[in-house]
Amino acid sequence: MLKECLENVRRTTPLVHNITNYVTVNDVANIILASGASPIMADEMEEVEEIVSICGGLNINIGTLNCRTIESIMAAGAKANELGRIVVFDPVGAGASNIRTETAKRIMNELKIDVIKGNASEMRTIAMGKGTTKGVDVDIVDAINENNLDEAVLFAKQLAKQKESIIVITGAIDLVADSNACYVIRNGRAEMEKITGTGCQLSGLLTAYVVANPKEKVLACVAAVCAMGLAGEMAYAALLPSEGNASYRNRIIDAIDNMTGEVLESGAKYELR
Amino acid sequence: MLKECLENVRRTTPLVHNITNYVTVNDVANIILASGASPIMADEMEEVEEIVSICGGLNINIGTLNCRTIESIMAAGAKANELGRIVVFDPVGAGASNIRTETAKRIMNELKIDVIKGNASEMRTIAMGKGTTKGVDVDIVDAINENNLDEAVLFAKQLAKQKESIIVITGAIDLVADSNACYVIRNGRAEMEKITGTGCQLSGLLTAYVVANPKEKVLACVAAVCAMGLAGEMAYAALLPSEGNASYRNRIIDAIDNMTGEVLESGAKYELR
Amino acid sequence: MLKECLENVRRTTPLVHNITNYVTVNDVANIILASGASPIMADEMEEVEEIVSICGGLNINIGTLNCRTIESIMAAGAKANELGRIVVFDPVGAGASNIRTETAKRIMNELKIDVIKGNASEMRTIAMGKGTTKGVDVDIVDAINENNLDEAVLFAKQLAKQKESIIVITGAIDLVADSNACYVIRNGRAEMEKITGTGCQLSGLLTAYVVANPKEKVLACVAAVCAMGLAGEMAYAALLPSEGNASYRNRIIDAIDNMTGEVLESGAKYELR
Repeated sequence: MLKECLENVRRTTPLVHNITNYVTVNDVANIILASGASPIMADEMEEVEEIVSICGGLNINIGTLNCRTIESIMAAGAKANELGRIVVFDPVGAGASNIRTETAKRIMNELKIDVIKGNASEMRTIAMGKGTTKGVDVDIVDAINENNLDEAVLFAKQLAKQKESIIVITGAIDLVADSNACYVIRNGRAEMEKITGTGCQLSGLLTAYVVANPKEKVLACVAAVCAMGLAGEMAYAALLPSEGNASYRNRIIDAIDNMTGEVLESGAKYELR
Repeated sequence: MLKECLENVRRTTPLVHNITNYVTVNDVANIILASGASPIMADEMEEVEEIVSICGGLNINIGTLNCRTIESIMAAGAKANELGRIVVFDPVGAGASNIRTETAKRIMNELKIDVIKGNASEMRTIAMGKGTTKGVDVDIVDAINENNLDEAVLFAKQLAKQKESIIVITGAIDLVADSNACYVIRNGRAEMEKITGTGCQLSGLLTAYVVANPKEKVLACVAAVCAMGLAGEMAYAALLPSEGNASYRNRIIDAIDNMTGEVLESGAKYELR
Repeated sequence: MLKECLENVRRTTPLVHNITNYVTVNDVANIILASGASPIMADEMEEVEEIVSICGGLNINIGTLNCRTIESIMAAGAKANELGRIVVFDPVGAGASNIRTETAKRIMNELKIDVIKGNASEMRTIAMGKGTTKGVDVDIVDAINENNLDEAVLFAKQLAKQKESIIVITGAIDLVADSNACYVIRNGRAEMEKITGTGCQLSGLLTAYVVANPKEKVLACVAAVCAMGLAGEMAYAALLPSEGNASYRNRIIDAIDNMTGEVLESGAKYELR
C-alpha cells in the first residue's frame, strides 16, 4: 500500500504551494522534486490565493515567520479550505516565542488543517496552546521513547480527535495518528538531527503524498514518514568516512529521488497501535 | 568564439547585482562564482541604486517577488538603464498569478532589458501580456520540440524585434534570438528539471557572460546557455548510481567551475537559423 | 587549548540566534550544527527579544539587510546586551552602500559587540566610519599579506582597543586581536573565496565557540578561525578532479562535522604577535 502511495506521487506530479522559511526552502523544493511532485514558493499576499488555487496542496511552515507572511499564510489557508485543497501545517518553534505560539493557535482556530507535523515539544504546544521549546529542537523531557510510547500514542490519538487532523509527531520514534489508530514508525537515524531542515523537508513530502493520495491520507502520511526515514538510513549507509552533515543532506534527497515503491514497501518499519 | 566569451568572464571578474528569489539564491551565487564572476545580492530600496552602480549588470528574477522587492527592482533597473549597465530579466512564473504577469509587464514597459530569459510559457506571457502557467514549470502545450521548432524560432525573432531585447527560451531545445537570427541549442538534459533553480542559475550566468562580452551580447548568451547545458551533460555522466537530484545540482555547479574555453567550444551543440 | 574550545562546543550545545542574510543562511545553520551547536534563525521584531533570551549568543550579519530587519537587529542586540549574551557582528558589504555603512556604525554605536568579523575592507569601514568596497569582496588594496602584516597587526590591535571588541580580520592571512595581542593565522586556502558564504559560516562558528568558552573568548575565536581554515585545507585535499566550488562547500561543512580537538590542535597554524 505504501508502494501505491509513492507511485501515485510520481504518476500525478502534484503541484505543492509552500509558504515556508528561508533557511531550508531550497532543500524543501528539491525534495518535493525528488518525490516526483512540483513545488512553487510564493508568500506575497497579492498572489497567494491565486497560487494555491492552481495547486493541489499548501504546505505552511512558520520557521522564519514575520508579520507580512503570517497574513499571507492565513489568506492562502482560507482559500485552500474554500477550494478543498490539502493543507499541511508545520509549527516550527511553536512554544519558543509568543508570536509563534499565537500564530500556531490562530492557524489551528481559523483553518481546517489536514495534517499537523511537529516534534513532541511543538505538538505539546499545539495541544496546550502554550509551551516552552528550546529553539526549534525538541525538549529532552518531551522526546518519545520506548518507555513513554503508550502515553505518546494516546496523546497523538486524542490530539487527532480534538483537532480533527492527522497528527504526525517526529522523533527517535515517529507517530502518525488519527483519532482511531496510531502508526508507530521506527525508520530514520539520530544523525538526521544534525542537518538543518529534515523536518521541513518531511512537511513538503507529506503535502505531496497526501495530495496524490486523497482517499488514503493517513497511509499517505505513513508512506512519507517511512520514505524520509528510510532515505536517512540509506543515505547514512552510503556516507564515506570523510563525509558529514552537508553530504548527508544531499544523500537523503538523492535517496528520495531514487526510491521505488518496492524499496519503500520492504524497508518501511511500522506497527499499528 | 564561445571560448573567448567564457575566458572574458574569468579574466574580467564582472560584479553582478542580483535581485532574486530566496529559494535558489545560494545556487545562483555559487554558479556566478564558478563562472569566474562575483555576485552581490541586495534588495533593499535604500541601497539598490548604489549597489547596481558598482556592478556591471543586474539580474532580475521574480521567483518570490513581493510588494517591497518589486519597487526595489524598478529602482535598480532604472538606475542600471541610466548608467548603461546590462539588465537580464527572468520572469519566473509570469502567467501563474496576476501580480507576476503585471510585474513582468511593468518591467518590460518601464525598463530597457538586454536579455529576457524564460521557459516557453513565461515567454508567451511576455509576448501576450497575459498567460496561464502551471506554477513555475512550462505548460506541455508550450514546450518546444522538433515539430514546432520553425514556429518557435519565428516567435523568438519576432519577440526580440518587438521587445528590442535578446530572447532566450529554455526547454528541451533552447533558443537564443535577436530580431535577425536565432541560435538553436541542443545541449542539456531533461533531468535538469528535477533540480530547483537551474533556470535561475542560467540567468545569473547570462548576466555574467553579457557583462564580460558587451560587444558580442548574443554570442555571450549562446555561450552561457551552451555552458549550462554542457555542465548538465557532464554532471549527469559523472553521477554515481546512488546519486540523485541534490548531488546533480552540486555537480552542475562544479562543472561550470571546471569548464574551460576549449571544453565549451568543443561541447557546444548549436545551429543558426 | 584550542582542543578544549572545540570540545566545549560539542559538550554544551550552545543555542545560537542568527539574524543573517538569505543567501547563505542554510550553510550557516548546517555549519553551526556541524560544530556541535544548535542554530535558530528569527528576524521578526515581535519575537527577536524572546528568541535571543533563550540563546547563548546572537550572530548579526547584514548581508541582505533591509529596513525591517535592521530594527530587529537593534532590538535583538539590545536585549542580548541587557542579558549578557554574546554578540558577534559580521558587517557584510559595509562600505558598499550608505545604508550598510550607516547600519554598521549604528550597531557599533548602540550595541556592545563581543566580536567583529570582516574582511580588510569591511574592517577599514568599521574603523573609518566610511569606506569603498567592491561589493562583498575585499578591495585588493586592503588585502593583508606578508608585506603589510606588521601594519595590519597594529591596525587590528588599535581597532580592538577603540571598539572594546575582539577583532577578526579574514583574508589570505587571518588576524584575531584584542588590544594587547594579535594572533596571526595561516590556515585556509584561497579557493574558499569561490564559495559564497564561507565568511558568513565563520561568523556562525565564532558565535558558537565564544558562547561555549566565555572565559577564553580570544582563544575561542582563534579556535573557530583555525577550524574553518583547517576544514578548508582538509576539504580541498579530499576534492576529486571533477569537483568544484559546490562540492567544496559541502566538504568544508563535513570537515567541521568530523573535526576532533586533536585534529584542530595539531593542524592549527598560528603565531602570537
